[in-house]
Amino acid sequence: MKPPVLLIDCPDRKGLIHDITGVLFRNNHNIISNSEYVDHETSHFFMRTEISGGNDFELLRDELYALLPNGSNVRFSNQSPKNIVIMATKEHHCLGDLLLRHAHHTLNASILAVISNHEVLKPLVKRFDIPFHYIPFEDVTKEEHEAAVISALKKYDPQYIALAKYMRVLSSQFISNYPGRIINIHHSFLPAFAGASPYRQAFERGVKIIGATAHFVTEHLDEGPIIAQGVTPVDHSYSVNDMVLAGRDVERTVLAKALRLVFEERVFLCGKRVVIFE
Amino acid sequence: MKPPVLLIDCPDRKGLIHDITGVLFRNNHNIISNSEYVDHETSHFFMRTEISGGNDFELLRDELYALLPNGSNVRFSNQSPKNIVIMATKEHHCLGDLLLRHAHHTLNASILAVISNHEVLKPLVKRFDIPFHYIPFEDVTKEEHEAAVISALKKYDPQYIALAKYMRVLSSQFISNYPGRIINIHHSFLPAFAGASPYRQAFERGVKIIGATAHFVTEHLDEGPIIAQGVTPVDHSYSVNDMVLAGRDVERTVLAKALRLVFEERVFLCGKRVVIFE
Amino acid sequence: MKPPVLLIDCPDRKGLIHDITGVLFRNNHNIISNSEYVDHETSHFFMRTEISGGNDFELLRDELYALLPNGSNVRFSNQSPKNIVIMATKEHHCLGDLLLRHAHHTLNASILAVISNHEVLKPLVKRFDIPFHYIPFEDVTKEEHEAAVISALKKYDPQYIALAKYMRVLSSQFISNYPGRIINIHHSFLPAFAGASPYRQAFERGVKIIGATAHFVTEHLDEGPIIAQGVTPVDHSYSVNDMVLAGRDVERTVLAKALRLVFEERVFLCGKRVVIFE
Amino acid sequence: MKPPVLLIDCPDRKGLIHDITGVLFRNNHNIISNSEYVDHETSHFFMRTEISGGNDFELLRDELYALLPNGSNVRFSNQSPKNIVIMATKEHHCLGDLLLRHAHHTLNASILAVISNHEVLKPLVKRFDIPFHYIPFEDVTKEEHEAAVISALKKYDPQYIALAKYMRVLSSQFISNYPGRIINIHHSFLPAFAGASPYRQAFERGVKIIGATAHFVTEHLDEGPIIAQGVTPVDHSYSVNDMVLAGRDVERTVLAKALRLVFEERVFLCGKRVVIFE
Repeated sequence: MKPPVLLIDCPDRKGLIHDITGVLFRNNHNIISNSEYVDHETSHFFMRTEISGGNDFELLRDELYALLPNGSNVRFSNQSPKNIVIMATKEHHCLGDLLLRHAHHTLNASILAVISNHEVLKPLVKRFDIPFHYIPFEDVTKEEHEAAVISALKKYDPQYIALAKYMRVLSSQFISNYPGRIINIHHSFLPAFAGASPYRQAFERGVKIIGATAHFVTEHLDEGPIIAQGVTPVDHSYSVNDMVLAGRDVERTVLAKALRLVFEERVFLCGKRVVIFE
Repeated sequence: MKPPVLLIDCPDRKGLIHDITGVLFRNNHNIISNSEYVDHETSHFFMRTEISGGNDFELLRDELYALLPNGSNVRFSNQSPKNIVIMATKEHHCLGDLLLRHAHHTLNASILAVISNHEVLKPLVKRFDIPFHYIPFEDVTKEEHEAAVISALKKYDPQYIALAKYMRVLSSQFISNYPGRIINIHHSFLPAFAGASPYRQAFERGVKIIGATAHFVTEHLDEGPIIAQGVTPVDHSYSVNDMVLAGRDVERTVLAKALRLVFEERVFLCGKRVVIFE
Repeated sequence: MKPPVLLIDCPDRKGLIHDITGVLFRNNHNIISNSEYVDHETSHFFMRTEISGGNDFELLRDELYALLPNGSNVRFSNQSPKNIVIMATKEHHCLGDLLLRHAHHTLNASILAVISNHEVLKPLVKRFDIPFHYIPFEDVTKEEHEAAVISALKKYDPQYIALAKYMRVLSSQFISNYPGRIINIHHSFLPAFAGASPYRQAFERGVKIIGATAHFVTEHLDEGPIIAQGVTPVDHSYSVNDMVLAGRDVERTVLAKALRLVFEERVFLCGKRVVIFE
Repeated sequence: MKPPVLLIDCPDRKGLIHDITGVLFRNNHNIISNSEYVDHETSHFFMRTEISGGNDFELLRDELYALLPNGSNVRFSNQSPKNIVIMATKEHHCLGDLLLRHAHHTLNASILAVISNHEVLKPLVKRFDIPFHYIPFEDVTKEEHEAAVISALKKYDPQYIALAKYMRVLSSQFISNYPGRIINIHHSFLPAFAGASPYRQAFERGVKIIGATAHFVTEHLDEGPIIAQGVTPVDHSYSVNDMVLAGRDVERTVLAKALRLVFEERVFLCGKRVVIFE
């Protein structure tokens, strides 16, 4: 059982750590681990504290807001598994990896359902006894398709949506329903090879290293805040398809890492970047 | 002493390896190591062979050209150290690394001179008893500046020019004098962050890995064929300057690796990419 | 469909490549890709050639043996999927990874069955409709247990056995039945931390990088020829359990890589080492 | 100019961070960055705090000791460059790297002298105008040799001694003079290949990755607490000498990293391990 965690971000000022830890101390909470960071570009303070002793979070929150500057965010999390929905298209490797971790209780999340615009992944999802929603996009408008997806999502009310190689671009409209709650895996070392067919682009450019990027999805395609990246070496003998295959191991590992960080409440948004307490 | 090496590239056809090795065998050359590659996109064949036994390279070359298809290139190299000139601006780490390797005979090249558009690196170069040419670009046109550089280069007639953090863009005119003979180190994981201030760009994009790229210089800025790349992890706590410092170790290692590969005759140009026999 | 591959190892002598490629040429086989290597410590020659054109492998083999030195091995493989059995104990991550790849036809092998000395992995294996053999080791001697395993293996007659975190030491007697055909994943960067509890050892030693090693199993525990290794960074904040979790992604990736190399006929044994044509 | 840093380690107890930051706050010091860690195996607390505002360190120290538990260590550092002596034998790459960094003010240390048991590195050291002490070990006992080294060291009174490929084993007696102050680079991925000729050992074992390890020197050879490690891939085609060459880039990078961490006061000893605040 993971300990509860206190998450604060606020404008920086002198004495913050002393004040915050004072609230914890007076309320008889012990600090198991503590991390702070000040973004000196914006003078914004971030703190993640694992605590023990009691469940008086409402009270603590009130006390903390009383002494913190305006513009502060205080949040407690009991680190219980997150409820998530996965969206995927045709590739199995990221989805399968998450299903495996879920089945063996190492994902720190409950996969409530999988939504796909194709049917090929249905047998895989069924192996793991997870609801599978096939929502085709042919013969409907983009708006209609997304409305159907949102309708399916509403049934599950997920805390996070993981795009495990979901190959359709989501509209700003769609994304605005889940701010900071959609995580995507992009099959390139962003910002290199943004857009379509990154492995084809990588092949043609003759790069010696390929990679993958997990990021929050914002309305700006492939430009959301990056959570995790990974790379693997390639050489001239790799065809585009060889790169695709080599990239798979990176993609699934990077997506799983990003989800772990988010689900363990280790990731703060900081403008177009993130602060991560590993 | 490294063995002589035979370098062939030509249009692919059946029986090539058999024919080429037949010429070597009949002339009593033993094959110490051999590497071939066929680029299936262009049906072009590449071969690098380290051989022993005799110096009859003229004869061999004639025999080989006689049996190879039109459009073949046959070259022998005795792998003696290359003559090079280094161009740099203000940063010492790549230049210093090459000077050290040169002084201890591990560069596989003779550094004939260093040319710089600033004077700050002169003391470093002088420590190693290498001629230093300060060619300022202030108060002259780009054409005049490059003419002065070319004039200095002509004195040394280098086989290769290494741009060890030379921060001026070279003109197409300049580059056309040294086709496939100028190697640059770019301080980003190209094609990400091409152009100026890549570490600033990387910082603002919030990437989790930074890198460096060594490439042949062509008239298309930052788009020449890539020879080697390297990366190192960073996180949100890295300022732009921290990235600059972390990147230095990658830059110098990647440049040195690329030069080693080129100087050991391991790199073939193949369109916009390279084939490397490591 | 992968092309047939010709695999030769033999004592080195002048003219080998010419002679071998001559046989292929005269029999109208084209060379799609070719790799050679001479181990200069033992003067032994290794060659892997992907060929096209015809199925006259018996004839080719006879011709090749006729011209090669004594002590040569010539083998053809049509690169069809290998038949394998997986042995595992309690951990799911390597096994699950192989099951996923198998289900999606990216393993290049048919998993005929899974054998385990525990029952906990049975539900996972059943999800993928693969036979699961629970062969307990309690209340029997080691000889009896291994006899039961061998009996189960005989039913399937696998070409290779993958030990996907099988935590029992196999006897020399057992291993001698499958020379060069058992591949194990060891959860350390061998030869560091051989033996039991490598992550505990790594933690206590305070290493900054942990790893995993896939190797052929020989009668010398943890000393078989290494096929692939991988690493991941750790720091002082990692508990033993954190290292176990971080190591999992490395273990499964390294095991899958080793199996791919072996199944694609890219690995030659060379004394206590291997030659790999990637 | 780097800010002053406060370094504390002490037995853990509730309220420590609150108490410590209270002292800073009341004395009008701002916290620029702060890192804490509790080693849960020993219940020991570590804290590194960069502060601004005043130079009243004596006073702060007294106040801190008054409220901290017995067994606490409180230290301030103004992060001025450390005074160091380098010891080396014949290899130039680590020494040259440190000399270059020193000459360009990126080492965060003053190299007061270089001591060697051979003369071959003298020309390199002389290029950088650093005193070079040749202290031969032939024709003298180990005790006499070490006495001569200590005598030379005493003249410089260095804060740290960097062993940049110093290939003689130092006696416990010698080491006891500089507890926690000697940093060595070992040319293997410890604990793999401890002892002599690690690259030869690595070659014979057929490993796929080689590495280097920087560690504090204790009386137990190759077993001192590890500060930094690095790795690079190799394959069957690498001779022992190729591994030596490939290892050099890792060795110098790892040693430089370890020294940077130590010189920036980021490393705490914690039994046989270290805690590092990067």
